[in-house]
Amino acid sequence: MEIKSDSIIEDTIRLLTSLDNAESQLLFHEENQLPSIKRLREAVDILRSIIFPGYFGEPVSAHSSLPYFLGVRVEKLYGILVEQIQSVLHLKSAESGNGKAHESAEETTRRFIATLPNLRRILLTDVEAIFNGDPAAKSHGEIVFCYPSIRAMINHRAAHSLLKLGVPLIPRIISEMSHSETGIDIHPGASIGEYFCIDHGTGVVIGETCIIGNNVRIYQGVTLGAKKFELDKDGNPAKNIPRHPIIEDNVVIYSNANILGRITIGKNSVIGGSVWITRSVPSNSRMLQQKAIESSFTDGLGI
Amino acid sequence: MEIKSDSIIEDTIRLLTSLDNAESQLLFHEENQLPSIKRLREAVDILRSIIFPGYFGEPVSAHSSLPYFLGVRVEKLYGILVEQIQSVLHLKSAESGNGKAHESAEETTRRFIATLPNLRRILLTDVEAIFNGDPAAKSHGEIVFCYPSIRAMINHRAAHSLLKLGVPLIPRIISEMSHSETGIDIHPGASIGEYFCIDHGTGVVIGETCIIGNNVRIYQGVTLGAKKFELDKDGNPAKNIPRHPIIEDNVVIYSNANILGRITIGKNSVIGGSVWITRSVPSNSRMLQQKAIESSFTDGLGI
Amino acid sequence: MEIKSDSIIEDTIRLLTSLDNAESQLLFHEENQLPSIKRLREAVDILRSIIFPGYFGEPVSAHSSLPYFLGVRVEKLYGILVEQIQSVLHLKSAESGNGKAHESAEETTRRFIATLPNLRRILLTDVEAIFNGDPAAKSHGEIVFCYPSIRAMINHRAAHSLLKLGVPLIPRIISEMSHSETGIDIHPGASIGEYFCIDHGTGVVIGETCIIGNNVRIYQGVTLGAKKFELDKDGNPAKNIPRHPIIEDNVVIYSNANILGRITIGKNSVIGGSVWITRSVPSNSRMLQQKAIESSFTDGLGI
Amino acid sequence: MEIKSDSIIEDTIRLLTSLDNAESQLLFHEENQLPSIKRLREAVDILRSIIFPGYFGEPVSAHSSLPYFLGVRVEKLYGILVEQIQSVLHLKSAESGNGKAHESAEETTRRFIATLPNLRRILLTDVEAIFNGDPAAKSHGEIVFCYPSIRAMINHRAAHSLLKLGVPLIPRIISEMSHSETGIDIHPGASIGEYFCIDHGTGVVIGETCIIGNNVRIYQGVTLGAKKFELDKDGNPAKNIPRHPIIEDNVVIYSNANILGRITIGKNSVIGGSVWITRSVPSNSRMLQQKAIESSFTDGLGI
Amino acid sequence: MEIKSDSIIEDTIRLLTSLDNAESQLLFHEENQLPSIKRLREAVDILRSIIFPGYFGEPVSAHSSLPYFLGVRVEKLYGILVEQIQSVLHLKSAESGNGKAHESAEETTRRFIATLPNLRRILLTDVEAIFNGDPAAKSHGEIVFCYPSIRAMINHRAAHSLLKLGVPLIPRIISEMSHSETGIDIHPGASIGEYFCIDHGTGVVIGETCIIGNNVRIYQGVTLGAKKFELDKDGNPAKNIPRHPIIEDNVVIYSNANILGRITIGKNSVIGGSVWITRSVPSNSRMLQQKAIESSFTDGLGI
Amino acid sequence: MEIKSDSIIEDTIRLLTSLDNAESQLLFHEENQLPSIKRLREAVDILRSIIFPGYFGEPVSAHSSLPYFLGVRVEKLYGILVEQIQSVLHLKSAESGNGKAHESAEETTRRFIATLPNLRRILLTDVEAIFNGDPAAKSHGEIVFCYPSIRAMINHRAAHSLLKLGVPLIPRIISEMSHSETGIDIHPGASIGEYFCIDHGTGVVIGETCIIGNNVRIYQGVTLGAKKFELDKDGNPAKNIPRHPIIEDNVVIYSNANILGRITIGKNSVIGGSVWITRSVPSNSRMLQQKAIESSFTDGLGI
Repeated sequence: MEIKSDSIIEDTIRLLTSLDNAESQLLFHEENQLPSIKRLREAVDILRSIIFPGYFGEPVSAHSSLPYFLGVRVEKLYGILVEQIQSVLHLKSAESGNGKAHESAEETTRRFIATLPNLRRILLTDVEAIFNGDPAAKSHGEIVFCYPSIRAMINHRAAHSLLKLGVPLIPRIISEMSHSETGIDIHPGASIGEYFCIDHGTGVVIGETCIIGNNVRIYQGVTLGAKKFELDKDGNPAKNIPRHPIIEDNVVIYSNANILGRITIGKNSVIGGSVWITRSVPSNSRMLQQKAIESSFTDGLGI
Repeated sequence: MEIKSDSIIEDTIRLLTSLDNAESQLLFHEENQLPSIKRLREAVDILRSIIFPGYFGEPVSAHSSLPYFLGVRVEKLYGILVEQIQSVLHLKSAESGNGKAHESAEETTRRFIATLPNLRRILLTDVEAIFNGDPAAKSHGEIVFCYPSIRAMINHRAAHSLLKLGVPLIPRIISEMSHSETGIDIHPGASIGEYFCIDHGTGVVIGETCIIGNNVRIYQGVTLGAKKFELDKDGNPAKNIPRHPIIEDNVVIYSNANILGRITIGKNSVIGGSVWITRSVPSNSRMLQQKAIESSFTDGLGI
Repeated sequence: MEIKSDSIIEDTIRLLTSLDNAESQLLFHEENQLPSIKRLREAVDILRSIIFPGYFGEPVSAHSSLPYFLGVRVEKLYGILVEQIQSVLHLKSAESGNGKAHESAEETTRRFIATLPNLRRILLTDVEAIFNGDPAAKSHGEIVFCYPSIRAMINHRAAHSLLKLGVPLIPRIISEMSHSETGIDIHPGASIGEYFCIDHGTGVVIGETCIIGNNVRIYQGVTLGAKKFELDKDGNPAKNIPRHPIIEDNVVIYSNANILGRITIGKNSVIGGSVWITRSVPSNSRMLQQKAIESSFTDGLGI
Repeated sequence: MEIKSDSIIEDTIRLLTSLDNAESQLLFHEENQLPSIKRLREAVDILRSIIFPGYFGEPVSAHSSLPYFLGVRVEKLYGILVEQIQSVLHLKSAESGNGKAHESAEETTRRFIATLPNLRRILLTDVEAIFNGDPAAKSHGEIVFCYPSIRAMINHRAAHSLLKLGVPLIPRIISEMSHSETGIDIHPGASIGEYFCIDHGTGVVIGETCIIGNNVRIYQGVTLGAKKFELDKDGNPAKNIPRHPIIEDNVVIYSNANILGRITIGKNSVIGGSVWITRSVPSNSRMLQQKAIESSFTDGLGI
Repeated sequence: MEIKSDSIIEDTIRLLTSLDNAESQLLFHEENQLPSIKRLREAVDILRSIIFPGYFGEPVSAHSSLPYFLGVRVEKLYGILVEQIQSVLHLKSAESGNGKAHESAEETTRRFIATLPNLRRILLTDVEAIFNGDPAAKSHGEIVFCYPSIRAMINHRAAHSLLKLGVPLIPRIISEMSHSETGIDIHPGASIGEYFCIDHGTGVVIGETCIIGNNVRIYQGVTLGAKKFELDKDGNPAKNIPRHPIIEDNVVIYSNANILGRITIGKNSVIGGSVWITRSVPSNSRMLQQKAIESSFTDGLGI
Repeated sequence: MEIKSDSIIEDTIRLLTSLDNAESQLLFHEENQLPSIKRLREAVDILRSIIFPGYFGEPVSAHSSLPYFLGVRVEKLYGILVEQIQSVLHLKSAESGNGKAHESAEETTRRFIATLPNLRRILLTDVEAIFNGDPAAKSHGEIVFCYPSIRAMINHRAAHSLLKLGVPLIPRIISEMSHSETGIDIHPGASIGEYFCIDHGTGVVIGETCIIGNNVRIYQGVTLGAKKFELDKDGNPAKNIPRHPIIEDNVVIYSNANILGRITIGKNSVIGGSVWITRSVPSNSRMLQQKAIESSFTDGLGI
């Protein structure tokens, strides 16, 4: 019996390792060139503790020692990012030489580090927007500490910044980290203005080519997605074509609304919950789902 | 090159530490007075192992040793809560004196501990409600073990209890823990009756001033939210004004429904999925979205 | 005061341990027979590292050492599954004898192990389906690495396989793990064809008796659920009756759509977002929510 | 080159796995029957926290909750010991049946648990002896907290107790744990009276058949060892023959003394440092090394 | 049987908790006032990474970031020491008031922090002494990295410094940490000059009132201990009376030598291994054990 | 007050970072080129689990899966050693080029891996020697599991092998690991024959240029050391000159004996405990310390 077990295991291992060429390429060969989830998670934790040093990471005991703590954190973030960015640069054809990759990774990381003060400034506008938009928020501190959208926006704004600096793959991994943590899924390609407020957030999806203005507020379950998409000449989906909505300033979108395709929601508009919008909406609109209707018992909904 | 890197880092650190007054207050000064996420997570784990000792925490080997295990767990929960509640009492103006804060934290914790037997009793009604409401549930044990709503409701019912005892901030943190874990976001202020059943639960939002009766069942993606909100005389959102729905006994609300504002869903009503309800509904109603319509290909939805 | 605290604690412990019979059975007696969440989490991590060895688990340094790594992983998976399956077999009435349970657990585990090569083959079709269905996906590797639906589908396809082998409880636990991680909730009973693509995924619910064809694509927030359900002669919900939709080949279902009851969505159909469908739909249909309407300010939606 | 590396690795693995029969038996077959170092380490930590609850293990917040903590600790110790003792009983020929082994392990563990109160009583005499014997000891608490001999004696007295109950292998493992931690190597077979004081302790060796009276004090580096040993009829060292010293009451032995063979050091004797004693010494003796002599530079000792 | 087990456990717990007054005081009441081994271990790790930043603690990536790393480390060391020193100040009668204890702990910690630069300077002389004294040492770096005496001396010199600042208990705990790690047991009271070299070190004991000059070298197993000690009027060992040797400059002491009592080893002396010295030795002496003698087989030493 | 604390901290940091040139070189510049203690500890753990797979590392469930486990372990060991050896090769002048260092590290590691089967063979002779030499050893398994000398000898024989392959620093680190763990300090340079038995072992020191034959047994506290050493023309200790004893076959050396200088202990000799030997001893000798003498009370040894 023991032997039978072993033979099944050996057969299974044999089958699992006898990969055809395509599988082999997918499952194995790239491996050495993949970034480390664990190290990127560290990087995100450090990033958060740089942006909001009083709330994330180990406590800083006195204001006067803040520079030491920030110094160490920025150093570590620098070190991890150089290492991780170097590991993905081969995915971009031009920079495959190893020495070159290291220099390029250092240069990219330096540029990213230099954006941190502005990153914090914008994130503080997001905190302010939530405070102004949610009566349940008791203090700014509570928002930083408890609102998942702040975590999602730290990750998004950093991932977007890395993407603009030409870093492949890593921005998506950073986005997925906060997606898993908060249920908010923002593609790093999306461009989002200041004073952005997501309330609750679970199920929010913001697509790759979205453009969102300032002072926009959206609720849980809102999809800013694509509709039909173009195929390229090989029959594959055409990449990088604008296919997600433009949301102008001061728009509010209620829970579970679906806004799809390269359309524009004009400024100051309010979009009600669970609507299905696939055409542009002028400024100052108020769009609602048609009224629910009273149904009879015969429809079969039980308690 | 190395030097350049350092100077960027040093410039960045300088910019990050040269906070203006408002930023400084937000980012740093509160820090010593914030509760510890790590310790509160421990508290929640212990709480769960007190409520359902056979399912959470380390196994209890024999019935006769249950009192020892519960004794140690209650002791530890007491210790963590006194420490954490003391750390937030300064957020309430009256009790800033240190000695007083400790006594007050002990008194509050004692009162909370005394609610645990009732807390378990009510949570058992929630288990029962799921068993009766979900044909997929094979046993009571499976429900405690596998249903995210049980985790969310342990956290909610405890957080609600702490909030009523006047504890600031901590209830929100406890709610966010299960929000991140389950996708179910219940504000600790919400008042929820017995035999409450959430099925699946991802995307559920239950707002701060909701009042939910007994024997209510809701599905994933349901929002019990606020609509427009009042501004106070300073133009800030007016806090603590009832602005979320009242759901009466025996109501069922299907997936992704949006019910907004201080309206009442009368008892025994059934609300269909993805509806948008902003006005009260009498008892025994059955509200459905209008029928979906057949659309042509010209609307642009592809495969 | 100290004494008072202790007496509250002692009273509370006394109340918490003085269980009535039904509570005692629920809270305690089953305990020795419950599987270990921690060990099953290990099993899932190992399973993922067997299916996609280049992406999950510790890096495999050279192609030639892949057999060693797979050998160790399959061995460990075998060991954990035998132990965990044995711990739940008593939940099935026939196999309570201890020796028998061990043999039966070994036999079941061997059969499961033998499905792994096919499991990987099907999962590769899911990767392919996402690559073809999402213009934002830059490479197959990014999909395995970053798309939550891959994690959910590894868990689902393994859980479904274990369920078909007659393993109780464990499949549900495995499903809940990826539900918590991804927000995608698929009951292990659901039968899902090849080339299945879930995009974003948060809030997706796929019920126990669903049957899904090949080449189906669904978006976040989609519910494939039950409506009213039958009660058996004791007034309990009747278990195991088909009550969830059949989705035929090549169907696309947009975000937050609700499809309920044992109905059929005919092949090649497209279902728009946030619709409410409780009746069957013929092949090649395109079903959309009725147009949103412009509402006045008097409806009370503020910014 | 890469290939060469692999072939070396494969050759090495082949050589490492092609064991002859004797090697195979030593290196592999016993494996399933070995106790777990990790679990025994846990057992020792718990044991220490039962004996000296104020010093080892997590803090006990109030005297009134001591019974809960001790209850949980004794329970856990019981559980680990049953499991570990069962894993070694096969090493004793008579009790190989599995069911029988479990019962026997439970019975043995119960007997061991029952010795704990006396174990603590004797260990308190050891604390007292150190306090009386070392002017550097400032308090009883410091001794429990800082003196390695207390850790060594907890392990020894427990290991000796288990050995007398017939448990194989585990007592030796427990002794080695404190040997590694403190440099004090006491064979579990050694019989040691009350009020035993080891100061500093590094390098102390107390052999298997030693018998030590009450109120004995020994210093670092002292060996109570064997000299020549008998061979049995097969030419192997004869096991279990008394071959280590008897140390009577009130003896003091200074650092690095070597006392070898089944001899007796009579009561009240004082043995000086670095002596070599292989014959019995009457009561009240004072034995010293002969005076050191002045040597010339020509002996070659440099600075 | 199960019941019997429980009753033994319950009886044992009852016996273990029914402490008489003296036991209770020893085993329990001090508990809240004991320092935390875990936190002090952290403190020692940080201290080592401050003294030798290139060798202990996480790597410092660039020289220019050294100040940040040292800043954070000194801050953390400060925080832990204030907390731990405060926890032991009650052991000194005068400073029992809580507020006062905190201030006093801060003052003491500040004074200790201020000694760190000098602490490092002296430790560098110890590194130099080993380099000059051991032909096996290949580089200064190897010494810091691999020589246990460096770890022991970091702990000793810091513990000695804390002791002189009046901190109770903690210095002994710090000494025991390196005793367990290295086998070198130096009482924090011992006063040791610069350029001190311990080679190998296992079994070295240096007593509380030792005074050691500059440029002294000692080998493994050397005891600088006490002989007979005075009893005070209550019959307890008289504390704090000089009872250990004075070792003058440039002395070398070979392995396992025993030097006991308040005697003086004059400068430039060399003491051979395993000697027993209880009387002072003038400067420039060379003391050796008397020659070993050839013994016959009849003494019973076998192979 | 707070400020004063900060200024002390800042002053201290300033002093600690204002290194003079020599200090800077010692404390900092080498840092990037130091091996990682943590990774080498991993390597040693893996090595032990390769040599004795049934005793160290995670359990191997079946004999047939041993090759998988050994394969993974050898792979990992290979990976860590290449990385760590590369990090120290710069310490050898000739191979500083980076690419060359990697190749050289791979070549060295391959050679080391190829010695593993022989390493195990010799270590099995050491196990046998202990079994034959210690009546307290109950089985071969107990020896592998419990005898510190086995751990010390695995480390030594591997470190010696690496040293002979020209690897700097790492062999010393590996030796120090088992020194700290067992109290047995063997310099990796020492050459040791087969069937080597160390009993108890604490305090054993075996110097860099020792040569030890086959079938030698030594006890705790034995020093095989150097005496006076030569200075080179710069006044530094001359490195790499033979200065430690040669111990011929079948010698037994009892506890705490000191054998110093480049002398020879002839075969079959027995050396008694605590002797001081600085001259060669012919074969078949039996050397003992002179008899201890009875001393009067006036020598001052108290109880």
